[in-house]
Amino acid sequence: METDVYQYRTGSTLCTDLTSAATGYVTGREDGLLHVFVPHATAGLALIETGSGTEADLAETLERMLPTQDIYRHRHGSLGHGRDHVMPAIVVPSLTLPVVGGQLALGIWQSVVLVDPNSDNPERNVRFSFLPG
Amino acid sequence: METDVYQYRTGSTLCTDLTSAATGYVTGREDGLLHVFVPHATAGLALIETGSGTEADLAETLERMLPTQDIYRHRHGSLGHGRDHVMPAIVVPSLTLPVVGGQLALGIWQSVVLVDPNSDNPERNVRFSFLPG
Amino acid sequence: METDVYQYRTGSTLCTDLTSAATGYVTGREDGLLHVFVPHATAGLALIETGSGTEADLAETLERMLPTQDIYRHRHGSLGHGRDHVMPAIVVPSLTLPVVGGQLALGIWQSVVLVDPNSDNPERNVRFSFLPG
Repeated sequence: METDVYQYRTGSTLCTDLTSAATGYVTGREDGLLHVFVPHATAGLALIETGSGTEADLAETLERMLPTQDIYRHRHGSLGHGRDHVMPAIVVPSLTLPVVGGQLALGIWQSVVLVDPNSDNPERNVRFSFLPG
Repeated sequence: METDVYQYRTGSTLCTDLTSAATGYVTGREDGLLHVFVPHATAGLALIETGSGTEADLAETLERMLPTQDIYRHRHGSLGHGRDHVMPAIVVPSLTLPVVGGQLALGIWQSVVLVDPNSDNPERNVRFSFLPG
Repeated sequence: METDVYQYRTGSTLCTDLTSAATGYVTGREDGLLHVFVPHATAGLALIETGSGTEADLAETLERMLPTQDIYRHRHGSLGHGRDHVMPAIVVPSLTLPVVGGQLALGIWQSVVLVDPNSDNPERNVRFSFLPG
Protein backbone atom coordinates (compact mmCIF):
# COMPACT_ATOMS: atom_id res chain seq x y z
CA MET A 1 0.00 0.00 0.00
CA GLU A 2 1.19 3.45 -0.86
CA THR A 3 -0.23 6.21 1.30
CA ASP A 4 0.18 9.99 1.39
CA VAL A 5 -1.44 12.95 3.13
CA TYR A 6 -2.27 16.19 1.32
CA GLN A 7 -3.35 19.50 2.78
CA TYR A 8 -6.25 21.61 1.60
CA ARG A 9 -7.36 25.07 2.61
CA THR A 10 -11.16 24.90 2.76
CA GLY A 11 -11.92 28.13 4.65
CA SER A 12 -15.66 28.71 4.47
CA THR A 13 -16.10 26.57 1.33
CA LEU A 14 -18.35 23.55 1.97
CA CYS A 15 -17.22 21.48 -1.04
CA THR A 16 -13.61 21.17 -2.22
CA ASP A 17 -13.10 19.13 -5.38
CA LEU A 18 -10.46 16.40 -4.91
CA THR A 19 -11.07 14.66 -8.23
CA SER A 20 -7.93 15.72 -10.03
CA ALA A 21 -5.81 14.89 -6.98
CA ALA A 22 -7.46 11.45 -6.69
CA THR A 23 -7.16 10.82 -10.41
CA GLY A 24 -3.53 11.86 -10.44
CA TYR A 25 -2.72 9.66 -7.45
CA VAL A 26 -3.72 6.46 -9.26
CA THR A 27 -3.09 7.15 -12.95
CA GLY A 28 -0.89 4.47 -14.45
CA ARG A 29 -1.18 2.11 -11.51
CA GLU A 30 -2.25 -1.51 -11.61
CA ASP A 31 -5.83 -2.49 -10.73
CA GLY A 32 -6.77 -1.98 -7.10
CA LEU A 33 -8.65 0.29 -4.73
CA LEU A 34 -8.08 3.93 -3.87
CA HIS A 35 -8.98 4.72 -0.28
CA VAL A 36 -9.69 8.36 0.51
CA PHE A 37 -9.83 9.32 4.17
CA VAL A 38 -10.37 12.55 6.09
CA PRO A 39 -8.80 12.39 9.59
CA HIS A 40 -11.13 15.03 11.03
CA ALA A 41 -14.26 14.80 13.19
CA THR A 42 -16.10 17.61 11.38
CA ALA A 43 -15.66 16.76 7.69
CA GLY A 44 -16.74 14.08 5.24
CA LEU A 45 -16.43 12.94 1.64
CA ALA A 46 -18.99 12.65 -1.13
CA LEU A 47 -19.20 11.59 -4.74
CA ILE A 48 -21.39 14.18 -6.43
CA GLU A 49 -21.58 16.18 -9.63
CA THR A 50 -19.90 19.55 -9.21
CA GLY A 51 -20.48 22.85 -10.98
CA SER A 52 -24.22 22.47 -11.57
CA GLY A 53 -25.65 23.60 -8.23
CA THR A 54 -25.44 20.43 -6.15
CA GLU A 55 -22.91 22.00 -3.77
CA ALA A 56 -25.51 24.63 -2.78
CA ASP A 57 -28.27 21.99 -2.68
CA LEU A 58 -26.15 19.87 -0.34
CA ALA A 59 -25.60 22.90 1.90
CA GLU A 60 -29.37 23.44 2.14
CA THR A 61 -30.05 19.74 2.71
CA LEU A 62 -27.53 19.66 5.56
CA GLU A 63 -29.18 22.78 6.98
CA ARG A 64 -32.57 21.00 6.99
CA MET A 65 -31.09 17.88 8.62
CA LEU A 66 -28.71 19.72 10.93
CA PRO A 67 -29.94 23.28 11.55
CA THR A 68 -27.32 25.89 12.42
CA GLN A 69 -28.98 26.67 15.72
CA ASP A 70 -28.09 26.50 19.39
CA ILE A 71 -29.63 23.04 19.83
CA TYR A 72 -26.56 20.84 20.25
CA ARG A 73 -24.95 19.46 23.41
CA HIS A 74 -21.54 19.63 21.77
CA ARG A 75 -21.12 23.39 22.09
CA HIS A 76 -17.97 25.36 21.31
CA GLY A 77 -16.74 27.62 18.52
CA SER A 78 -19.26 29.19 16.12
CA LEU A 79 -23.04 29.02 16.59
CA GLY A 80 -24.34 25.57 15.75
CA HIS A 81 -20.86 24.05 15.43
CA GLY A 82 -22.32 20.93 17.10
CA ARG A 83 -23.91 20.13 13.73
CA ASP A 84 -20.46 19.77 12.16
CA HIS A 85 -19.70 17.01 14.67
CA VAL A 86 -22.81 15.02 13.74
CA MET A 87 -22.30 15.35 9.99
CA PRO A 88 -19.62 12.60 9.59
CA ALA A 89 -22.15 10.03 10.85
CA ILE A 90 -24.12 10.83 7.69
CA VAL A 91 -21.57 12.17 5.18
CA VAL A 92 -18.84 9.60 5.70
CA PRO A 93 -15.13 10.53 6.04
CA SER A 94 -13.97 7.31 4.33
CA LEU A 95 -14.47 6.38 0.67
CA THR A 96 -13.17 3.49 -1.42
CA LEU A 97 -12.96 3.78 -5.21
CA PRO A 98 -12.04 1.29 -7.95
CA VAL A 99 -8.89 1.71 -10.01
CA VAL A 100 -9.08 -0.14 -13.31
CA GLY A 101 -6.78 -0.07 -16.31
CA GLY A 102 -4.60 2.64 -14.83
CA GLN A 103 -7.55 4.97 -14.22
CA LEU A 104 -9.89 5.91 -11.42
CA ALA A 105 -13.12 4.23 -12.59
CA LEU A 106 -15.56 7.01 -11.70
CA GLY A 107 -18.76 7.68 -13.56
CA ILE A 108 -18.65 10.61 -15.95
CA TRP A 109 -20.60 12.92 -13.60
CA GLN A 110 -18.97 11.84 -10.35
CA SER A 111 -16.49 14.07 -8.56
CA VAL A 112 -14.71 13.28 -5.29
CA VAL A 113 -15.55 16.09 -2.89
CA LEU A 114 -14.32 17.03 0.56
CA VAL A 115 -17.36 18.22 2.53
CA ASP A 116 -16.30 20.61 5.28
CA PRO A 117 -19.00 22.69 7.00
CA ASN A 118 -16.58 23.84 9.69
CA SER A 119 -15.10 27.25 8.89
CA ASP A 120 -13.41 27.37 12.32
CA ASN A 121 -10.82 24.92 11.04
CA PRO A 122 -9.72 26.06 7.56
CA GLU A 123 -6.80 23.64 7.08
CA ARG A 124 -7.70 20.04 6.30
CA ASN A 125 -5.74 16.87 5.63
CA VAL A 126 -6.82 14.17 3.21
CA ARG A 127 -5.10 10.77 3.09
CA PHE A 128 -4.96 8.88 -0.19
CA SER A 129 -4.00 5.19 0.01
CA PHE A 130 -3.65 2.87 -2.95
CA LEU A 131 -4.16 -0.82 -2.29
CA PRO A 132 -3.01 -2.95 -5.24
CA GLY A 133 -5.31 -5.85 -6.08
CA MET B 1 -8.28 -7.81 -8.26
CA GLU B 2 -11.05 -9.10 -10.45
CA THR B 3 -13.58 -6.49 -11.56
CA ASP B 4 -16.72 -6.58 -13.70
CA VAL B 5 -19.58 -4.25 -14.56
CA TYR B 6 -23.20 -5.43 -14.69
CA GLN B 7 -26.24 -3.59 -16.02
CA TYR B 8 -29.56 -3.22 -14.26
CA ARG B 9 -32.82 -1.78 -15.48
CA THR B 10 -34.20 0.16 -12.51
CA GLY B 11 -36.92 2.22 -14.24
CA SER B 12 -39.03 3.86 -11.52
CA THR B 13 -38.03 1.28 -8.86
CA LEU B 14 -36.15 2.89 -5.96
CA CYS B 15 -34.56 -0.31 -4.59
CA THR B 16 -33.07 -3.06 -6.75
CA ASP B 17 -31.79 -6.10 -4.87
CA LEU B 18 -28.19 -6.97 -5.83
CA THR B 19 -27.68 -9.61 -3.13
CA SER B 20 -27.75 -12.69 -5.34
CA ALA B 21 -25.43 -11.04 -7.86
CA ALA B 22 -23.01 -10.02 -5.09
CA THR B 23 -23.19 -13.43 -3.45
CA GLY B 24 -22.63 -15.19 -6.76
CA TYR B 25 -19.67 -12.96 -7.59
CA VAL B 26 -17.67 -14.11 -4.56
CA THR B 27 -18.88 -17.64 -3.83
CA GLY B 28 -15.95 -20.03 -3.63
CA ARG B 29 -13.31 -17.33 -3.54
CA GLU B 30 -10.58 -16.92 -0.95
CA ASP B 31 -10.98 -14.46 1.92
CA GLY B 32 -10.98 -10.81 0.90
CA LEU B 33 -13.20 -7.81 0.30
CA LEU B 34 -15.99 -7.30 -2.22
CA HIS B 35 -16.22 -3.72 -3.40
CA VAL B 36 -19.53 -2.66 -4.90
CA PHE B 37 -19.59 0.63 -6.77
CA VAL B 38 -22.21 2.60 -8.68
CA PRO B 39 -20.62 4.93 -11.28
CA HIS B 40 -23.57 7.33 -11.33
CA ALA B 41 -24.15 10.73 -9.69
CA THR B 42 -27.81 10.03 -8.83
CA ALA B 43 -27.73 6.58 -7.23
CA GLY B 44 -26.38 4.92 -4.10
CA LEU B 45 -26.07 1.60 -2.30
CA ALA B 46 -27.52 0.38 0.98
CA LEU B 47 -27.50 -2.69 3.17
CA ILE B 48 -31.08 -3.10 4.34
CA GLU B 49 -33.66 -5.82 4.89
CA THR B 50 -35.85 -6.21 1.80
CA GLY B 51 -39.40 -7.46 1.44
CA SER B 52 -40.74 -6.19 4.78
CA GLY B 53 -41.55 -2.57 3.97
CA THR B 54 -38.18 -0.87 4.43
CA GLU B 55 -37.97 0.02 0.72
CA ALA B 56 -41.12 2.16 1.08
CA ASP B 57 -39.92 3.54 4.44
CA LEU B 58 -36.64 4.56 2.81
CA ALA B 59 -38.56 6.30 0.01
CA GLU B 60 -40.54 8.30 2.59
CA THR B 61 -37.42 9.11 4.62
CA LEU B 62 -35.65 10.41 1.51
CA GLU B 63 -38.76 12.47 0.72
CA ARG B 64 -38.56 14.07 4.19
CA MET B 65 -34.84 14.77 3.83
CA LEU B 66 -34.94 15.69 0.15
CA PRO B 67 -38.44 16.86 -0.82
CA THR B 68 -39.47 16.38 -4.47
CA GLN B 69 -40.07 20.08 -4.93
CA ASP B 70 -38.72 22.87 -7.07
CA ILE B 71 -36.18 23.96 -4.44
CA TYR B 72 -32.89 22.84 -5.96
CA ARG B 73 -30.28 24.84 -7.87
CA HIS B 74 -29.42 21.79 -9.92
CA ARG B 75 -32.49 21.90 -12.13
CA HIS B 76 -33.12 19.71 -15.19
CA GLY B 77 -35.25 16.68 -16.04
CA SER B 78 -38.22 15.79 -13.82
CA LEU B 79 -39.52 18.03 -11.00
CA GLY B 80 -37.21 17.87 -8.02
CA HIS B 81 -34.50 15.92 -9.87
CA GLY B 82 -31.96 18.05 -7.98
CA ARG B 83 -32.70 15.86 -4.94
CA ASP B 84 -31.33 12.83 -6.79
CA HIS B 85 -28.00 14.64 -7.13
CA VAL B 86 -27.73 15.30 -3.38
CA MET B 87 -28.68 11.76 -2.38
CA PRO B 88 -25.25 10.11 -3.00
CA ALA B 89 -23.72 12.40 -0.34
CA ILE B 90 -25.97 10.56 2.13
CA VAL B 91 -26.69 7.16 0.57
CA VAL B 92 -23.18 6.29 -0.56
CA PRO B 93 -22.39 4.83 -4.01
CA SER B 94 -19.48 2.74 -2.68
CA LEU B 95 -19.72 -0.24 -0.32
CA THR B 96 -17.12 -2.72 0.90
CA LEU B 97 -18.17 -6.15 2.20
CA PRO B 98 -16.22 -9.01 3.79
CA VAL B 99 -15.77 -12.33 2.01
CA VAL B 100 -14.97 -15.15 4.41
CA GLY B 101 -14.78 -18.90 3.85
CA GLY B 102 -15.97 -18.62 0.26
CA GLN B 103 -19.10 -16.65 1.20
CA LEU B 104 -20.22 -13.05 1.40
CA ALA B 105 -20.32 -12.55 5.18
CA LEU B 106 -23.57 -10.58 5.39
CA GLY B 107 -25.92 -10.69 8.35
CA ILE B 108 -29.01 -12.82 7.86
CA TRP B 109 -31.30 -9.80 7.33
CA GLN B 110 -28.92 -7.72 5.21
CA SER B 111 -29.45 -7.32 1.47
CA VAL B 112 -27.28 -5.31 -0.91
CA VAL B 113 -29.55 -2.78 -2.56
CA LEU B 114 -29.06 -0.32 -5.42
CA VAL B 115 -30.91 2.87 -4.45
CA ASP B 116 -31.95 4.81 -7.53
CA PRO B 117 -34.49 7.62 -7.14
CA ASN B 118 -33.89 8.85 -10.69
CA SER B 119 -36.47 7.45 -13.11
CA ASP B 120 -35.11 9.65 -15.91
CA ASN B 121 -32.16 7.28 -16.25
CA PRO B 122 -33.53 3.71 -16.16
CA GLU B 123 -30.31 1.86 -17.09
CA ARG B 124 -27.67 1.58 -14.37
CA ASN B 125 -24.23 0.03 -14.12
CA VAL B 126 -22.85 -1.61 -10.98
CA ARG B 127 -19.18 -2.55 -10.68
CA PHE B 128 -18.20 -5.52 -8.52
CA SER B 129 -14.52 -5.83 -7.62
CA PHE B 130 -13.00 -8.63 -5.55
CA LEU B 131 -9.81 -7.83 -3.69
CA PRO B 132 -8.15 -10.98 -2.35
CA GLY B 133 -6.74 -10.66 1.16
CA MET C 1 -6.74 -11.16 5.31
CA GLU C 2 -7.24 -11.77 8.98
CA THR C 3 -10.82 -11.53 10.17
CA ASP C 4 -12.53 -11.89 13.55
CA VAL C 5 -15.96 -11.27 15.03
CA TYR C 6 -16.44 -9.67 18.45
CA GLN C 7 -19.61 -9.36 20.49
CA TYR C 8 -20.88 -6.23 22.17
CA ARG C 9 -23.79 -5.73 24.53
CA THR C 10 -25.38 -2.44 23.44
CA GLY C 11 -28.70 -2.64 25.32
CA SER C 12 -30.37 0.76 25.03
CA THR C 13 -27.09 2.61 24.36
CA LEU C 14 -27.07 4.28 20.93
CA CYS C 15 -23.28 4.69 20.63
CA THR C 16 -20.74 2.05 21.68
CA ASP C 17 -17.10 3.07 21.32
CA LEU C 18 -15.07 0.52 19.35
CA THR C 19 -11.92 2.61 19.06
CA SER C 20 -9.73 0.69 21.49
CA ALA C 21 -10.82 -2.64 19.97
CA ALA C 22 -10.10 -1.35 16.46
CA THR C 23 -6.78 0.16 17.52
CA GLY C 24 -5.77 -3.03 19.28
CA TYR C 25 -6.70 -5.17 16.30
CA VAL C 26 -4.17 -3.47 14.01
CA THR C 27 -1.38 -2.26 16.30
CA GLY C 28 1.98 -3.50 15.07
CA ARG C 29 0.70 -4.67 11.72
CA GLU C 30 2.07 -3.70 8.33
CA ASP C 31 0.38 -0.98 6.27
CA GLY C 32 -3.07 -1.84 4.97
CA LEU C 33 -6.77 -1.28 5.55
CA LEU C 34 -8.94 -2.18 8.52
CA HIS C 35 -12.46 -3.07 7.50
CA VAL C 36 -15.12 -2.79 10.20
CA PHE C 37 -18.47 -4.39 9.48
CA VAL C 38 -21.73 -4.79 11.38
CA PRO C 39 -23.72 -7.81 10.14
CA HIS C 40 -27.06 -6.43 11.31
CA ALA C 41 -29.92 -4.69 9.48
CA THR C 42 -30.61 -2.19 12.29
CA ALA C 43 -27.16 -0.85 13.18
CA GLY C 44 -24.43 1.24 11.62
CA LEU C 45 -20.95 2.65 12.18
CA ALA C 46 -19.72 6.21 12.51
CA LEU C 47 -16.48 8.10 13.01
CA ILE C 48 -17.31 10.85 15.50
CA GLU C 49 -15.86 12.54 18.55
CA THR C 50 -17.13 10.87 21.72
CA GLY C 51 -17.56 12.25 25.23
CA SER C 52 -18.46 15.84 24.28
CA GLY C 53 -22.17 15.53 23.54
CA THR C 54 -22.19 14.34 19.93
CA GLU C 55 -23.74 10.99 20.89
CA ALA C 56 -26.84 12.83 22.18
CA ASP C 57 -26.78 15.21 19.20
CA LEU C 58 -26.71 12.23 16.85
CA ALA C 59 -29.68 10.69 18.69
CA GLU C 60 -31.67 13.91 18.19
CA THR C 61 -30.62 14.21 14.55
CA LEU C 62 -31.76 10.65 13.87
CA GLU C 63 -35.04 11.45 15.64
CA ARG C 64 -35.56 14.42 13.28
CA MET C 65 -34.75 12.33 10.22
CA LEU C 66 -36.45 9.16 11.41
CA PRO C 67 -39.14 9.99 13.99
CA THR C 68 -39.99 7.27 16.52
CA GLN C 69 -43.61 7.19 15.44
CA ASP C 70 -46.01 4.67 13.97
CA ILE C 71 -45.34 5.80 10.40
CA TYR C 72 -43.35 2.88 8.99
CA ARG C 73 -44.48 -0.04 6.82
CA HIS C 74 -41.90 -2.28 8.46
CA ARG C 75 -43.76 -2.75 11.72
CA HIS C 76 -42.80 -5.16 14.50
CA GLY C 77 -41.19 -4.92 17.94
CA SER C 78 -41.12 -1.56 19.74
CA LEU C 79 -42.96 1.56 18.53
CA GLY C 80 -41.20 3.07 15.55
CA HIS C 81 -38.79 0.14 15.13
CA GLY C 82 -39.19 0.61 11.37
CA ARG C 83 -36.86 3.61 11.72
CA ASP C 84 -34.05 1.30 12.85
CA HIS C 85 -34.35 -0.57 9.55
CA VAL C 86 -33.97 2.60 7.47
CA MET C 87 -31.00 3.91 9.46
CA PRO C 88 -28.27 1.72 7.82
CA ALA C 89 -29.05 3.34 4.45
CA ILE C 90 -27.80 6.57 6.03
CA VAL C 91 -25.44 5.52 8.84
CA VAL C 92 -23.49 2.84 7.00
CA PRO C 93 -22.68 -0.58 8.51
CA SER C 94 -19.33 -0.82 6.69
CA LEU C 95 -16.26 1.34 7.28
CA THR C 96 -12.72 1.16 5.92
CA LEU C 97 -9.84 2.76 7.81
CA PRO C 98 -6.14 3.23 6.98
CA VAL C 99 -3.44 1.41 8.95
CA VAL C 100 -0.07 3.13 8.65
CA GLY C 101 3.19 2.52 10.51
CA GLY C 102 1.62 -0.07 12.78
CA GLN C 103 -1.18 2.26 13.90
CA LEU C 104 -4.78 3.00 13.00
CA ALA C 105 -4.39 6.38 11.26
CA LEU C 106 -7.40 8.14 12.76
CA GLY C 107 -7.59 11.84 13.41
CA ILE C 108 -7.08 12.88 16.99
CA TRP C 109 -10.83 13.51 17.59
CA GLN C 110 -12.17 10.53 15.64
CA SER C 111 -13.60 7.52 17.43
CA VAL C 112 -15.03 4.40 15.78
CA VAL C 113 -18.58 4.05 17.06
CA LEU C 114 -21.21 1.33 16.72
CA VAL C 115 -24.56 3.09 16.25
CA ASP C 116 -27.40 0.88 17.43
CA PRO C 117 -30.84 2.47 17.91
CA ASN C 118 -32.50 -0.92 18.34
CA SER C 119 -32.88 -1.83 22.02
CA ASP C 120 -34.92 -4.93 21.09
CA ASN C 121 -31.67 -6.64 20.05
CA PRO C 122 -29.07 -5.94 22.77
CA GLU C 123 -26.33 -8.32 21.53
CA ARG C 124 -24.36 -7.18 18.48
CA ASN C 125 -21.55 -8.63 16.42
CA VAL C 126 -18.82 -6.54 14.83
CA ARG C 127 -16.39 -8.04 12.29
CA PHE C 128 -12.88 -6.63 12.05
CA SER C 129 -10.88 -7.60 8.94
CA PHE C 130 -7.32 -6.52 8.23
CA LEU C 131 -6.28 -6.41 4.59
CA PRO C 132 -2.50 -6.05 4.22
CA GLY C 133 -1.41 -3.67 1.49
